[in-house]
Amino acid sequence: MATNRQVLLHSRPVGIPEASDFRIVETPIPEPGKGQVLVRNLFLSIDPAMRGWVNAAPNYLPPVEIGAVMRSFSVGRIVASKDARWREGELVTGLFGWQEWAVLDAGQIDRKLEDRIYKGLSPSTALGVLGLNGLTAYHALLEVGQPRPGDTVVVSSGAGSVGACVGQIAKIAGCRTVGVAGGTTKAALCREAFGFDAAVDYRSPDFAAELKAACGTGVDVYFDNTSGPVSDAVFGLLRKRARVVVCGTVAFADWSPPPQGPRIDRHVLVARARVEGFVATDWFHRWDDALVPLSAWMREGRLAHREDILDGIEHAPGSIAGLYRGENLGKRVIRLAGES
Amino acid sequence: MATNRQVLLHSRPVGIPEASDFRIVETPIPEPGKGQVLVRNLFLSIDPAMRGWVNAAPNYLPPVEIGAVMRSFSVGRIVASKDARWREGELVTGLFGWQEWAVLDAGQIDRKLEDRIYKGLSPSTALGVLGLNGLTAYHALLEVGQPRPGDTVVVSSGAGSVGACVGQIAKIAGCRTVGVAGGTTKAALCREAFGFDAAVDYRSPDFAAELKAACGTGVDVYFDNTSGPVSDAVFGLLRKRARVVVCGTVAFADWSPPPQGPRIDRHVLVARARVEGFVATDWFHRWDDALVPLSAWMREGRLAHREDILDGIEHAPGSIAGLYRGENLGKRVIRLAGES
Repeated sequence: MATNRQVLLHSRPVGIPEASDFRIVETPIPEPGKGQVLVRNLFLSIDPAMRGWVNAAPNYLPPVEIGAVMRSFSVGRIVASKDARWREGELVTGLFGWQEWAVLDAGQIDRKLEDRIYKGLSPSTALGVLGLNGLTAYHALLEVGQPRPGDTVVVSSGAGSVGACVGQIAKIAGCRTVGVAGGTTKAALCREAFGFDAAVDYRSPDFAAELKAACGTGVDVYFDNTSGPVSDAVFGLLRKRARVVVCGTVAFADWSPPPQGPRIDRHVLVARARVEGFVATDWFHRWDDALVPLSAWMREGRLAHREDILDGIEHAPGSIAGLYRGENLGKRVIRLAGES
Repeated sequence: MATNRQVLLHSRPVGIPEASDFRIVETPIPEPGKGQVLVRNLFLSIDPAMRGWVNAAPNYLPPVEIGAVMRSFSVGRIVASKDARWREGELVTGLFGWQEWAVLDAGQIDRKLEDRIYKGLSPSTALGVLGLNGLTAYHALLEVGQPRPGDTVVVSSGAGSVGACVGQIAKIAGCRTVGVAGGTTKAALCREAFGFDAAVDYRSPDFAAELKAACGTGVDVYFDNTSGPVSDAVFGLLRKRARVVVCGTVAFADWSPPPQGPRIDRHVLVARARVEGFVATDWFHRWDDALVPLSAWMREGRLAHREDILDGIEHAPGSIAGLYRGENLGKRVIRLAGES
């Protein structure tokens, strides 16, 4: 492979970025300068948050500029290093972008994939269950959601990369878990692959009644990855001092202007509920606190995960829209063919 | 006065209770039995929460039954006691209802008005700034809102009984305060009587821009007594890790079904904000923690309050609707003529 294929942001999408918002270019493989490394990407991550990164609306990272390489997390191997802190052959992860090769300032590398966590596991897990998704699930559930044994925990997008992990951690923490997912296939996946005590298909015409039945006396923790009609149904079921973790808003592509829905104030007041936002980047000082137990649970067979692997960077442009259509059954990654 | 006038709930209002939802009856002054006291009410409290007490929708107290004396806080003097814990002449407060005389089981008395707090002050303050409003303002702001010196604190219903107290406590805590109120008179009251650094009239056609200008770099604590359009404007201004105290929802008379509005999820997520409900009854074990400092600040001239006094129980039936029309400039109470 003599050239570097890169996916650039071509136009500013309003809402969900489609394949036509990107274009693929071929450029020479760059040379690292002093203090830089050259990384060959092995897996690119496809995450719902990437919608926000390309929209113009205020967000927790500045928007990707038109003509720039699309921001994404990825895992790659260092093939050349001109920085004493990093060595050839090391597996590393960070915001290396949608490209096959990346020259990075050493400070742009988030972390090394250390054997004590990843040995025997695919490096792609660093983009999912042993990456941002696991970090999110672990800290957002345990620190913000504060589940207690016996609590009923409802997880929207329960079959998604974060939700599936949340449900399994909640079970380990002694909770009763209810997954909400779109369609009977994903609801079944919640129960069968991820051990939820109950799962409800939000597309069912009787969704609200089915959710209520699944939640028994009410909801102590609502881990929300979606917003929208699922949340509307859950808020009416909150028990006293319930905790709501606002982790994602995948039900809506566009928040500018914000979509309308029933106001939640009265539910929050009557239940004395606490609704709190979680952004994973705030927790980058606590990777090990999450990844050490998560990888141990994986080795013990107590934590399952699924991946949805697309082969080749040519799948990247359309991959975010596909997420929002719910076409993946597992953490979506692009596998690059560079390393064999 | 040979009879007891009582205000009974006559019909179940949907939304705001109007005068026609009540009727006044005359009954004999009751006799206390063993373990009971007879109280002559001096002041009846009129609070926004009373709307919720008469609606059928789920709430934090069971609905007042049709034909029952309307639930309300009041202050009265014990005129006869058949319980060893209470003595004639003591001033007491509790849910004694809209009536001139009340026979109570001793356990129905919430608390005695002790001289160390109330000496030299009107017993009516036990229904406002040295009562539920003060308890609410103090604990909801300090425990839930967790203001830090230098924070910008926005208070909806800033000229109201709770809001005015919140604004003044926040100033004492070293914060910058912005009051939101309906109309130029109340906005001026926020600034001039209650010391808000800025006040904005939410009825102004330029409300959102005026609020933004008043809030400088953003909002750290939003103390919400209203919900509705005021909240919609404030949520877009939340700074990182902002706290929102959901204390009241007076902008809407009816929450069944809930009113529609812009969803807040994205603001909560991006700001990592925490939105939490507060119900004063949860804090009845901490009266002194609030009332001792509040009464000290009153004596030091650092805490102002205003009352809106209606003379005679005949004003009770229409008094809640008047609150929702915003016709009072201060904590609304009914003064009964019994004690001269």
